[in-house]
Amino acid sequence: MKPVNVGMLGLGTVGAGVANILERNADVITRRAGREIRITRVAARHLDRPRSCRLEGFQLTTDPFEVVDDPEVEIVVELIGGYEPARELVLRALDNGKHVVTANKALIALHGNEIFARARETGVTVAFEAAVAGGIPIIKAIREALTGNRVEWLAGIINGTANYILTEMFYEGREFGEVLAEAQRLGYAEADPSFDVEGIDAAHKLTILASIAFGIPLQYDKVHIEGIDHITREDVAWAQELGFRIKHLGLAFHVENGYTLRVHPALLPVRHMLANVDGVMNAVMVKGDAVGPTMYYGAGAGAEPTASAVVADMVDVVREFNLEPENRVPYLAFHSHALSKGVVLPMHEVETAYYLRLFARDEPGVLADVTRVLGDRGISIEAVIQKQPEPGVDHIPVILLTHKVREGQMDAAIEQLENLERIDGRIVRIRVENLE
Amino acid sequence: MKPVNVGMLGLGTVGAGVANILERNADVITRRAGREIRITRVAARHLDRPRSCRLEGFQLTTDPFEVVDDPEVEIVVELIGGYEPARELVLRALDNGKHVVTANKALIALHGNEIFARARETGVTVAFEAAVAGGIPIIKAIREALTGNRVEWLAGIINGTANYILTEMFYEGREFGEVLAEAQRLGYAEADPSFDVEGIDAAHKLTILASIAFGIPLQYDKVHIEGIDHITREDVAWAQELGFRIKHLGLAFHVENGYTLRVHPALLPVRHMLANVDGVMNAVMVKGDAVGPTMYYGAGAGAEPTASAVVADMVDVVREFNLEPENRVPYLAFHSHALSKGVVLPMHEVETAYYLRLFARDEPGVLADVTRVLGDRGISIEAVIQKQPEPGVDHIPVILLTHKVREGQMDAAIEQLENLERIDGRIVRIRVENLE
Repeated sequence: MKPVNVGMLGLGTVGAGVANILERNADVITRRAGREIRITRVAARHLDRPRSCRLEGFQLTTDPFEVVDDPEVEIVVELIGGYEPARELVLRALDNGKHVVTANKALIALHGNEIFARARETGVTVAFEAAVAGGIPIIKAIREALTGNRVEWLAGIINGTANYILTEMFYEGREFGEVLAEAQRLGYAEADPSFDVEGIDAAHKLTILASIAFGIPLQYDKVHIEGIDHITREDVAWAQELGFRIKHLGLAFHVENGYTLRVHPALLPVRHMLANVDGVMNAVMVKGDAVGPTMYYGAGAGAEPTASAVVADMVDVVREFNLEPENRVPYLAFHSHALSKGVVLPMHEVETAYYLRLFARDEPGVLADVTRVLGDRGISIEAVIQKQPEPGVDHIPVILLTHKVREGQMDAAIEQLENLERIDGRIVRIRVENLE
Repeated sequence: MKPVNVGMLGLGTVGAGVANILERNADVITRRAGREIRITRVAARHLDRPRSCRLEGFQLTTDPFEVVDDPEVEIVVELIGGYEPARELVLRALDNGKHVVTANKALIALHGNEIFARARETGVTVAFEAAVAGGIPIIKAIREALTGNRVEWLAGIINGTANYILTEMFYEGREFGEVLAEAQRLGYAEADPSFDVEGIDAAHKLTILASIAFGIPLQYDKVHIEGIDHITREDVAWAQELGFRIKHLGLAFHVENGYTLRVHPALLPVRHMLANVDGVMNAVMVKGDAVGPTMYYGAGAGAEPTASAVVADMVDVVREFNLEPENRVPYLAFHSHALSKGVVLPMHEVETAYYLRLFARDEPGVLADVTRVLGDRGISIEAVIQKQPEPGVDHIPVILLTHKVREGQMDAAIEQLENLERIDGRIVRIRVENLE
């Protein structure tokens, strides 16, 4: 059979990874796909830059529209990232009757609904496994393997940079800022790390996962997002004392009256599988009503792990060439006419347990004040650690672990506590998830 | 669209699980598959036995051939287990133009090559996700998600009973026989536990995994199989002292001159992800050259976890109805004409590190004798633990950890050691895997 021609937009780290995999593993890929897959046309911003892949056989251009308009190209791989011109290029490729493979989580999370509708109109397919958790086939798992289940919740460590920082803080007792600076030096963190440490990248991915798990439209603007920059090494140590590790999680729950979608740091029991996912690795746990908890673990970023997912998507597309659209796996797992509305609850209706860290004047009766405020709002306490005062310091750290309560109740309690005269400064709150 | 009619062979635990999932989750399954999936015809050995599912709408029979010959049935689900008559029924269903979904690992491991050839002839499909690791979508992951990779190795905890026993031995310090008896009482182990604790069940699953990972034919008879019945609680404790946990693994490696396929207990570093898979849970780690290590975790057995995989296979079949065979995912991941020969190496050519446990007379110079025998064969020692003698006992346990060596060399060394006068009885050997 004649080879499949691929046009690639972007020739950065992942693009070079795709080129290298297709070359190095050409034999096994052809044996699996049934046809050779080869890159013929590539758009890159700079043609003279050194690349970490061979360029032989590629027709290079600086104009990405040449690639999406090339009549010889059957699959367009979009690796530019960001919203525009990625969106315009993908839509044009679809209009031109080309299948699209993309690793662009921001694009899918925000414009996926539009892109999938266009693909349905033009009868081609869009694949985006690489958009979430790099080389881990989490989209395929939820979309095709848990199809008998009602998904109850999913929880993921889906940003390697944030996980690397928290892992170093845990094992080495280092501070957030120090580890972040090192991660930037090592290339694990971007020069502008805000997407990673503030949770925006994780929220893009969570948006996609929640949609395919629950059969609801993509709705990024409903995700509650918190980063990890307020976590101190003391929090990490105190959480450990209580039997927990702090992880930055993307969480999606199906609750009684809707869904909760949130990205924030959380305490996890030390022996929980997710608590032991270290370094830059990613993992997603999905709880189905029939299968119970399942977990998917692997490299969530990096050239070849991400390219591995891109190539798998290409093989899927090739295996399914000529398929009638109604025989394809639906983009968001559920058929488009069968998506449900998906009411995402506001954060104050979310129920979790809490880790609270406050600084209190070292005087008798302070703890009684604190527990009274909590008790008045029906918040019961599971554990308290009160540290010894350091010489010359008149405020001591108090760590509380509460039972489950609605976030709205906790907000009010925290406000009241912060107004107590003998409490110093802001109270740090980290949610506790048991994920059973 | 009109519903898809399913005929089911067997109405035991998993069959009832399938019926319950299809009923309870009918809405989400239809929204995902595009068509309702309903069981219309069921063969069970006894019609009057109480079942843990509703039987309304099922046409029951004691003759399974009535089901595979029913012209209204589009998908046959085989849940009888064992080789015959399962093989005959599956072949007849295929001949009748029906798609087949099976959870039968023994059948696929031993007769898969024949069954797939028949399915290709008759233009229908055979799905068998439930045959390996229950609810974990490990076949889909390897077959469809790691398609860009050259798989270097895979390692799995793929028998829940064996893992439950080893977990109890680790945390509770109990003996093998005691835990096995309890597992039988709790229903985690069969009355005849040999398939589980001797590794036969794991070897069936490993056969399938190795084939789809490497693109080689199914060859169960080439798997080296060892059980866990010789592992003592002392071994478990001593391994822990050395920084390891003992797990029963299915292992498949692509090595320079072929493949190694083996099921045996092995020491794993305590912080390895697989070492922390506890109880009846299963997990498979797959190392691809592009993606690196990935892991898939979940319930490997039980009514609904296994049924979850069966239902997912049905949804796959329904989504792909009317597909031309050349557009389907190949059964063994690689197209049938593209399977390679797959030379499986004999065990004496396998290279691993070893944990050795021996009983030596408590006299000066014994350890020197032991290390000389090993040294003469080029086996170097990484660690030694020599225990204090108990009062009145003249043989003390000595535990050695070696570096990597060929199994043939180790066999010869062990034979020589067992002939030393001051060594008592057989030497226990457990392989050490680092799986990096």
